[in-house]
Amino acid sequence: MARVDQLASERSKAQFDVDEMKIVWAGSRHAFEISDRISRLVASDPAFRKDNRAMLGRKELFKNTLRKAAHAWKRIIELRLTDEEASRLRFYVDEPAFTDLHWGMFIPAIKGQGTDEQQQKWLPLAYKMQIIGCYAQTELGHGSNVQGLETTATFDPQTDEFIIHSPTLTSSKWWPGGLGKVSTHAVVYARLITDGKDYGVNGFIVQLRSLDDHSPLPGITVGDIGMKFGNGAYNTMDNGVLQFDHVRIPRDQMLMRVSQVTREGKFVQSNVPRQLVYGTMVYVRQTIVSDASCALSRAVCIATRYSAVRRQFGSNNDGVETQVIDYKTQQNRLFPLLASAYAFRFVGEWLKWLYTDVTQRLQANDFSTLPEAHACTAGLKSLTTSATADAIEECRKLCGGHGYLCSSGLPELFAVYVPACTYEGDNVVLLLQVARFLMKTVSQLGSGKKPVGTTAYMGRVEHLMQSRCDAQRAEDWLKPSVILEAFEARSARLSVACAQNLAKFANQEEGFAELSANLTEASVAHCQLIVVSKFIEKLQQDIPGKGVKEQLEILCNIYALSLLHKHQGDFLSTGSITSKQASLANDQLRSLYSQVRPNAVALVDAFNYTDHYLGSVLGRYDGNVYPKLYEEAWKDPLNDSVVPDGYHEYIRPLLKQQLRNARL
Amino acid sequence: MARVDQLASERSKAQFDVDEMKIVWAGSRHAFEISDRISRLVASDPAFRKDNRAMLGRKELFKNTLRKAAHAWKRIIELRLTDEEASRLRFYVDEPAFTDLHWGMFIPAIKGQGTDEQQQKWLPLAYKMQIIGCYAQTELGHGSNVQGLETTATFDPQTDEFIIHSPTLTSSKWWPGGLGKVSTHAVVYARLITDGKDYGVNGFIVQLRSLDDHSPLPGITVGDIGMKFGNGAYNTMDNGVLQFDHVRIPRDQMLMRVSQVTREGKFVQSNVPRQLVYGTMVYVRQTIVSDASCALSRAVCIATRYSAVRRQFGSNNDGVETQVIDYKTQQNRLFPLLASAYAFRFVGEWLKWLYTDVTQRLQANDFSTLPEAHACTAGLKSLTTSATADAIEECRKLCGGHGYLCSSGLPELFAVYVPACTYEGDNVVLLLQVARFLMKTVSQLGSGKKPVGTTAYMGRVEHLMQSRCDAQRAEDWLKPSVILEAFEARSARLSVACAQNLAKFANQEEGFAELSANLTEASVAHCQLIVVSKFIEKLQQDIPGKGVKEQLEILCNIYALSLLHKHQGDFLSTGSITSKQASLANDQLRSLYSQVRPNAVALVDAFNYTDHYLGSVLGRYDGNVYPKLYEEAWKDPLNDSVVPDGYHEYIRPLLKQQLRNARL
Repeated sequence: MARVDQLASERSKAQFDVDEMKIVWAGSRHAFEISDRISRLVASDPAFRKDNRAMLGRKELFKNTLRKAAHAWKRIIELRLTDEEASRLRFYVDEPAFTDLHWGMFIPAIKGQGTDEQQQKWLPLAYKMQIIGCYAQTELGHGSNVQGLETTATFDPQTDEFIIHSPTLTSSKWWPGGLGKVSTHAVVYARLITDGKDYGVNGFIVQLRSLDDHSPLPGITVGDIGMKFGNGAYNTMDNGVLQFDHVRIPRDQMLMRVSQVTREGKFVQSNVPRQLVYGTMVYVRQTIVSDASCALSRAVCIATRYSAVRRQFGSNNDGVETQVIDYKTQQNRLFPLLASAYAFRFVGEWLKWLYTDVTQRLQANDFSTLPEAHACTAGLKSLTTSATADAIEECRKLCGGHGYLCSSGLPELFAVYVPACTYEGDNVVLLLQVARFLMKTVSQLGSGKKPVGTTAYMGRVEHLMQSRCDAQRAEDWLKPSVILEAFEARSARLSVACAQNLAKFANQEEGFAELSANLTEASVAHCQLIVVSKFIEKLQQDIPGKGVKEQLEILCNIYALSLLHKHQGDFLSTGSITSKQASLANDQLRSLYSQVRPNAVALVDAFNYTDHYLGSVLGRYDGNVYPKLYEEAWKDPLNDSVVPDGYHEYIRPLLKQQLRNARL
Repeated sequence: MARVDQLASERSKAQFDVDEMKIVWAGSRHAFEISDRISRLVASDPAFRKDNRAMLGRKELFKNTLRKAAHAWKRIIELRLTDEEASRLRFYVDEPAFTDLHWGMFIPAIKGQGTDEQQQKWLPLAYKMQIIGCYAQTELGHGSNVQGLETTATFDPQTDEFIIHSPTLTSSKWWPGGLGKVSTHAVVYARLITDGKDYGVNGFIVQLRSLDDHSPLPGITVGDIGMKFGNGAYNTMDNGVLQFDHVRIPRDQMLMRVSQVTREGKFVQSNVPRQLVYGTMVYVRQTIVSDASCALSRAVCIATRYSAVRRQFGSNNDGVETQVIDYKTQQNRLFPLLASAYAFRFVGEWLKWLYTDVTQRLQANDFSTLPEAHACTAGLKSLTTSATADAIEECRKLCGGHGYLCSSGLPELFAVYVPACTYEGDNVVLLLQVARFLMKTVSQLGSGKKPVGTTAYMGRVEHLMQSRCDAQRAEDWLKPSVILEAFEARSARLSVACAQNLAKFANQEEGFAELSANLTEASVAHCQLIVVSKFIEKLQQDIPGKGVKEQLEILCNIYALSLLHKHQGDFLSTGSITSKQASLANDQLRSLYSQVRPNAVALVDAFNYTDHYLGSVLGRYDGNVYPKLYEEAWKDPLNDSVVPDGYHEYIRPLLKQQLRNARL
């Protein structure tokens, strides 16, 4: 069958070089080439098919994931893939699996918290998958408050062992991925108790299952915690529950890089700085921001292509209805999300740089930038995941009724994405951490201590408290300096207002609690400023390719001005801009929508997603939506027979009034 | 086992009479008694169990729904339930089923659009369920634009028949619930063609399946459209696809109350006013608003109870951690939703009255209030369903990680609810309809034509354009007059600003399209004003019961002031209030949160939901959350065996490095 491109005329409208944009999106030509090659490899391998996922029952679904994980490993070895390539392959398989935790949490925990000997012993086993590990931290009763974990690890000097124990129901480990059915080992977080004293939460390597027959070891109760949101989504993952009944492990399975317990049972701190923990957090959250731009760009790609295919109401001269992407209400909802996808991509790139920078400083015993880097990644994790979760659902709604079908790909994308708002730091808890950092920054402004990095603008607080926005015409809102100043003024003023209100409280903690809703708003303002300013910095780099830079400028302005409209209340209440200026910004925004319109489909093509990875009939590259929707429908198990199972027992008796007669 | 009420101390804090509030919530003592009795009846019948729903595959799930529908019918007959009781029973069974469409759309369509003879012929069959019907309107290519439907019904004068035909792939009927596998009949909407002329879309009764063996009749292709969002949710429903290949039906199966085709093939309009269609829309959308308050209150009930059970961080003097409901960030997110549940309940009640009023007027040939009533219900449908969908997801997030488990009930509640934003009028399309009505109202202000009903305030537009808000202290924001005036000023000013901007366009349609995003904001402002004012009107009624009225006043103020904060940008940019006043309103809001806090659990108890209906481990009446979560986990099919299916094929070869060896 000849390939028909229903979107060809859309693609021909593009005013920029799509291939160059693909490289900008990927971050480098090297990254683009790997992604391109590996994504095609996965897409062309029938073993990685995923279009039947929604129809499988839990057991089949899970077994299918085990099969894919084994197949992925087989291909990784056969093709001698590098670590980077292997990681891309798992990414494009696009199915949560125990391997995510093995590679993403178990191994990094040993690397980060294990001594050199521990790493030499355990890492080779893990790298070859001779053991499979997970990360057992969260408990039934404690998630955010890690210091409140209840599992105990009591040192027994008689046998030189730790006794791992679950003293209560709420101390059951709960949620760890890969724990329920697969992992042979876990890094278990437990309260270290030695010599009758509680030394707080530490990590321990614990074997859970026999390497011979996979049965749980004595004293270990382990299972799956049950179904989760969505049809496929995280139901491919064996999130687990785990209880210990006095399980003994050798002393040397405590991760001892930062703290140790001696043979005599003495607790000792090593000279390795505890701040390393924050370095790891910066790393993990940085990857979450990068994942946010992936998830968001997938949703936007689907909604943009389908909006160009779908026609409803109105009519051109030729009697054809209007493409829904031409409606301003659609553009007003869709284009800010398209701009956000790019904005999050670039801020994620910058965070990668920040992590490298922090790591180098830590190695040189320079901890000065760590608090700022930590607050910044915490805030951006919160901002980007919340925005992405909302955006995926908005994209689903932008696809109208058909977005509700699993074959649209959007329901699963949403269900699989939303936990990002909760794991690795609940988004509201994180905003409060940012707020604490901001309040501290404000309080130190008088002291001569200059704020660094993303808070540097606070150093100009006196200017920002009284500056007046320059915008006099709509076009003024295209100037980076005007945008930046408005966002800086809003953020600085909200923070200062919070600090002033806090000062009215005798008890600071009470004040912080009472004002916490306002404090989170100040944090959001600060984080949005970071994203805007990193986008603007990106534009100051040398960006080759016809029209590429121009498109990015348009997207940057859409991102900033749509936020300005959405949070108008902040900007106006702080006097950072006037009503008139807000209205001019909105006029400018509408005109930007018209500029991005002809480029919209090409801008999502630049993500370079295969139809396999996208997993959406509505977002197909060729736009051939309707025949494919129709074809997919017939695959549902309910269509296996014309007359449904249950007809004779439950429908026919109704129609024949046998139910009624039975009673008479 | 003795029943332990973990929430007893919360319940003892309540400052009002919960039993009286239950009656307020239900609308009347009569309504309360029926709901209470029927919900317990359903909850105590093991045939209506629903806690296993998430684990069933599509076929089992669907068959299970057929079983429940048959059982429900059997109970309805055995117990000789009234229509109202039967409808409550289906409601509390709480599972989308073909019966929803049979009773909710098929029968009403025949009643509304059929002639007396047609009603006499078809309704008795439908009432006894000797036939089962659905409502086949939406097509693959057309949803919102009903006038664009492509299915044809061509009159053949030779045989006195209509020929129903699907001329294109996109003309396939797509989405109708109950169509895929169950319905024997459908009301099919098709373009009426007679004498070579297209008379637009009309309804026809078409038999789809044999009453003997349920096989599709000749010329009919019918099936299920496949999996939809969520684990259980709408996958219990056979949303269907349907194609006609020149299917012939007798002429008298066109629904002929409003238009007829004569034996000769002449198209004739009856003297029945076409406006009746709008009356039906008012009815359907009114029920959707009422459903919104149900769905929202369920989510709020779960999140409130769990927030009182869950403890994290902090510590009282006794060393126990803080209940998360005591955090201001939690209150700031949860309490406005609690208030919204009550607000939507009361505006829904008022819409019921409005429908009765409109119906009586229509019968007296008074169409004067119809446009206003139509705009008002369209707007409230849009406002309440969008807010409810967002709120359910927010409640899920408020439950932290555990909200992601199906056993929390929230994922399914979300998945089953969100289509309400799309069906019966896409929410954005509806807001644009409201905007058209508002622009018309504004344009007629000078003409002496007085705006009626919910737009009456527009009659005071001159005053509202220049009025200044009276609030000088935080307490002033407790006055209904201050709140109302601020909401009226905001709404009037946004509408007038849109009208002024529209006037600048030479082409009005072009202007409307260009400004559509602003127009929808004006519509939202108008609709929020309606909800606020109906809540205030409710408070002016006589409300018995200790403390009940006081609680409702607090909730009304929380609803209004939280909206004011959320849409601060509107209020400030229109100059309806000052920054200082916005800040005072926010101070007042925080103090209202403290007032509602001790009553929160009792306020959700007042919804009187059984644990069966609520379907949530986190929302259990007795608050016994953790043991029950643990117990539920073990029911997952993955826990049927200790070692998972797939271990020997896919895990053991990894661990034993057989995959690696296979290659070497």
